[in-house]
Amino acid sequence: MTAFDKAQQNDTPPVSITDEDVTAEDFLVLSPDRVRLVAEALDANDSNGVFDVVRTLNNADTADLIEHLSGDHRNGLIDLLHGSLNPEVLAELDETVREQVVKRLDAEEVAAAISGLESDDALEVIEDLHEDIQQQILQEIPTEERVILEDSLSYPEESAGRLMQRKLVSVPEHWTVGEIIDFLRSEKDLPQDFYDIFIVDPKHQPVGSVPLSRVLRSERSVRGPDIMETRIKPVEANMDQEEVARLFRRHNLISAPVIDPEKRLIGVITVDDVVDVIDEEAGEDIMRLGGVKEEDFYSAFIDTTRSRFTWLLVNLATAFLASFVIFQFESTISKVVALAVLMPIVASMGGNAGTQTLTVAVRALAMKELNPANLWRSIGKEFLVSLVNGLLFAGITGLVCWWWFDWPEIGFIIAAAMIINIVVAGLSGMGVPLILERLNIDPAIASGTFLTTITDVVGFLSFLGLAAWFLL
Amino acid sequence: MTAFDKAQQNDTPPVSITDEDVTAEDFLVLSPDRVRLVAEALDANDSNGVFDVVRTLNNADTADLIEHLSGDHRNGLIDLLHGSLNPEVLAELDETVREQVVKRLDAEEVAAAISGLESDDALEVIEDLHEDIQQQILQEIPTEERVILEDSLSYPEESAGRLMQRKLVSVPEHWTVGEIIDFLRSEKDLPQDFYDIFIVDPKHQPVGSVPLSRVLRSERSVRGPDIMETRIKPVEANMDQEEVARLFRRHNLISAPVIDPEKRLIGVITVDDVVDVIDEEAGEDIMRLGGVKEEDFYSAFIDTTRSRFTWLLVNLATAFLASFVIFQFESTISKVVALAVLMPIVASMGGNAGTQTLTVAVRALAMKELNPANLWRSIGKEFLVSLVNGLLFAGITGLVCWWWFDWPEIGFIIAAAMIINIVVAGLSGMGVPLILERLNIDPAIASGTFLTTITDVVGFLSFLGLAAWFLL
Repeated sequence: MTAFDKAQQNDTPPVSITDEDVTAEDFLVLSPDRVRLVAEALDANDSNGVFDVVRTLNNADTADLIEHLSGDHRNGLIDLLHGSLNPEVLAELDETVREQVVKRLDAEEVAAAISGLESDDALEVIEDLHEDIQQQILQEIPTEERVILEDSLSYPEESAGRLMQRKLVSVPEHWTVGEIIDFLRSEKDLPQDFYDIFIVDPKHQPVGSVPLSRVLRSERSVRGPDIMETRIKPVEANMDQEEVARLFRRHNLISAPVIDPEKRLIGVITVDDVVDVIDEEAGEDIMRLGGVKEEDFYSAFIDTTRSRFTWLLVNLATAFLASFVIFQFESTISKVVALAVLMPIVASMGGNAGTQTLTVAVRALAMKELNPANLWRSIGKEFLVSLVNGLLFAGITGLVCWWWFDWPEIGFIIAAAMIINIVVAGLSGMGVPLILERLNIDPAIASGTFLTTITDVVGFLSFLGLAAWFLL
Repeated sequence: MTAFDKAQQNDTPPVSITDEDVTAEDFLVLSPDRVRLVAEALDANDSNGVFDVVRTLNNADTADLIEHLSGDHRNGLIDLLHGSLNPEVLAELDETVREQVVKRLDAEEVAAAISGLESDDALEVIEDLHEDIQQQILQEIPTEERVILEDSLSYPEESAGRLMQRKLVSVPEHWTVGEIIDFLRSEKDLPQDFYDIFIVDPKHQPVGSVPLSRVLRSERSVRGPDIMETRIKPVEANMDQEEVARLFRRHNLISAPVIDPEKRLIGVITVDDVVDVIDEEAGEDIMRLGGVKEEDFYSAFIDTTRSRFTWLLVNLATAFLASFVIFQFESTISKVVALAVLMPIVASMGGNAGTQTLTVAVRALAMKELNPANLWRSIGKEFLVSLVNGLLFAGITGLVCWWWFDWPEIGFIIAAAMIINIVVAGLSGMGVPLILERLNIDPAIASGTFLTTITDVVGFLSFLGLAAWFLL
């Protein structure tokens, strides 16, 4: 009995839905009480107490438990569980946490766990590891599986080749439904789950796919090609995972065949992997727009501090640039201090209006909704929106400032600066991400800084410039 | 022949992958050239030219085409196509665009199209429509289907009841694999695609599910319960769609049974609908963090302007609040103009540092990664990160300002203000979303404004306050 078999036996006991204790909530989150129970048992060196809780958890729960524990408790738990940790739990873990867990296990243990996983899950576990650790683990894996993993690792990161599962069901064109069913019943080495059967020609190129429901609904004498879907969407192994996700979403796919440059069938990607990609990519965009790295939440304190420092340093430089603009108007401000009081309003409104446009543009670019066909129309719309809102806020702000300082000129000046800055903000909110996209830089990562630099500089320059011109 | 049958026949001709013209790219995006071709043909009133292009498009392409055309061209295209528009195209359309298209069609046409769709897609088409239009369309639908749609509409928006497909395959507990296969082969009224067969008890409560691959791999004599998955995750019809998405993601589900309050099986949710939900929810978070509405991109100019105005008005109010703080130090600034030059740096660094923390917190809350078990540890980590970065940036900024104005005191004062503001920013970046979540307000929607108000006020107050104290 291998470590993997043992681990499999250790999986969750079946939970029947007639069981009154289990509510829908329990499938969604691991209750904090159970995390607390485990932490307390670990503190008290009560390994039975730990096992009592862990035994009731499914794989997703166990992964959550490991993630939610503090570093020390996490290590303690891994030391206790290592032999009986279900390999699937490793695949479920957050990337940053997984690296910590794997470091805590022996290479043989990780290798044994990986051997029990499907090829795509096994790859997920090892692909982000440090190269030495990766090599150490690969050495412990039986040759046949190792070759497959090494081949998968040869595809670029975040490509279809990394996502795909190698084991799949393909049958020749001349087979009937009866032959397919007999094959499925007798063949033992099949993937755990599959949703489509691929029909391949003699060169092993896919010519169609048959959803399992069609196999089941057809008579045994029907030939495969008569019921196959010919409009299949083959994925090249080098395709970026974001594109793969778009393909699945666009065509509501459940699985798609992966082909090599000779168009031969080499793997299959299923929708459950794509769901993770969609999540990941959306999270990446959110984090990048906020100036943080995707793995921030579970990172060690020092890594988080360092990565955020870099970003803030860029911001400090741009903040000094804006200060330098103000510095040019020192004498103006010393004569009219009201300018210092009001200038942040112009900058802030420009920044916010620009961020609105920027967000829409970044999202539309990510979803491929913004393209040459509607580019100029979209820019035109943003210009109009900015112009109208610019005029409205110029009016409101101008009147308030006039009333506040009882001085009409200051009202007119801030109004004019507001129109300028909001219109510039709208156009930059579209322009900056478009230019970055053209330069092959992810618009989500850098747009924000560029934009606020522009709106700060233009805001201060237009307001203080107009004031210097008209008031002095 | 119904309008729907005709439309079905009009679907894309099969594209074989041996066809050299079709590249993987074509499955991902509709080429802008084709959009231009259609637009030109519409301008020239050349309906054959339009059909020549449309005939080569699949449903996803046609939906893209309709989305990417300008309003006038869109209406022209719909007027041309209406009889032959594949109902599935309606389901694929962006919500805002769909409403425009449906308004352009007769109620009978929409009703005919909807009758050709599965219940979940049909619901998607009509659920967001204005109530009068919805009622008009429902009147035109045959009673049996109408009752189902009306029942689905009775579930809350964005709930599992709205997502589910009514047609499913359920069989009694005593059936064997052979009986199941015979049933599937003879029964005509089955869903178009299905992945699991649900086993129900006499009360019609689901007791397990059998993936189709297991049915295919088992001998005819095997009984359903012997191969069924008992750890099914039933979804209550009132469950929020975001929770449904989490359930699918957490347990890598392909389909899940939906139950009513009596735990009877009433529908099934499949992963392709969940993919759309995940996309939608991620998009919503990105847009809300940026201060815009989800439907912004395809909205008419006037709707976009109005919704952004509201948000900018809130920002204007908070900007005036910050100005009012500066106003309190008017006399200090008039004596030391360097303060006006430097004060935006303190505010801006606080805003950016706070946004980093805020982004991580909002995302972690959305993904249920932040919870009572790791709450205080996470807050502690943010405090430490802010403290260290605050100290580092205090040092850098202080030295630069000392050198710039050749005045050590100003360096010390900005350094002190920087530490205060970055630490406050870090704590607020965690605290604001947590408090909003506790108050059942979506943290994505309002956190940003609260946060920048805090960092602006604290930034100006600490810097100008310290300066007034020490310099004067």
